[in-house]
Amino acid sequence: MDSLTAITIEEQFQKGKWLFYKDQMADNIYLVKKGAVELLIKVQDTIEIPIAIMRPDNGCVGIGALVEPFRYTLSARCTDDSTLLAMKREDLQALMRKDHELGCIIMKNLAQKLLVRLTETRKEMKIHFLNLVRSATF
Amino acid sequence: MDSLTAITIEEQFQKGKWLFYKDQMADNIYLVKKGAVELLIKVQDTIEIPIAIMRPDNGCVGIGALVEPFRYTLSARCTDDSTLLAMKREDLQALMRKDHELGCIIMKNLAQKLLVRLTETRKEMKIHFLNLVRSATF
Repeated sequence: MDSLTAITIEEQFQKGKWLFYKDQMADNIYLVKKGAVELLIKVQDTIEIPIAIMRPDNGCVGIGALVEPFRYTLSARCTDDSTLLAMKREDLQALMRKDHELGCIIMKNLAQKLLVRLTETRKEMKIHFLNLVRSATF
Repeated sequence: MDSLTAITIEEQFQKGKWLFYKDQMADNIYLVKKGAVELLIKVQDTIEIPIAIMRPDNGCVGIGALVEPFRYTLSARCTDDSTLLAMKREDLQALMRKDHELGCIIMKNLAQKLLVRLTETRKEMKIHFLNLVRSATF
């Protein structure tokens, strides 16, 4: 934990500030210390599909920074004035190369979070699918 | 790779054979050597939502075995007579505890696969969402 703290920078962001946009190079990963960050997909400039809101208790923002090809898979915007703990991808990669055990723990946690998100997204898909079947049947 | 090969058992499965069902304890992870395995979600006994078909070139089946709480998140059925390379969860976990560097590589690959699947599932969600918006507008 000490080695993670050493590469962490605390940053303040105002409500409404975009942290990053989908498909940009993922140079940073963030933990929410205070406030809230919304993850979303923008479609056709005007439509926003909300995916999740990240708060101090539920994990990190910008996990694309941990996985090749290192691009953000969603866009992120602060929905409150927020205090975030930022880690540079390069620093984190260097740390994980040096300490394989820590690297293993981080990637294990990441895989777990991704599987939870995937399962949730599939549940939503299932609801859409069933609605389609129902509307085709009745 | 040698240490992975040592814990791998080659098994034959007939077309139509269920490997496992969603929510069962994930005791094994499989690589497809020959044939094909269909991943799906069963709904209300009669409806099947197809998720993916895994073949020799595109990865592994049963990744729930690598992530807590170690349950399968989908059901899997052979769509052809298939040869699979099976690894027991316990053997793989023991190997990863002994060799953190290998563990790190496996979890990194897993996270990458999960992120790809998540991004694909979100793309489908986006299409459903846009269809909904369109049908509400016109």
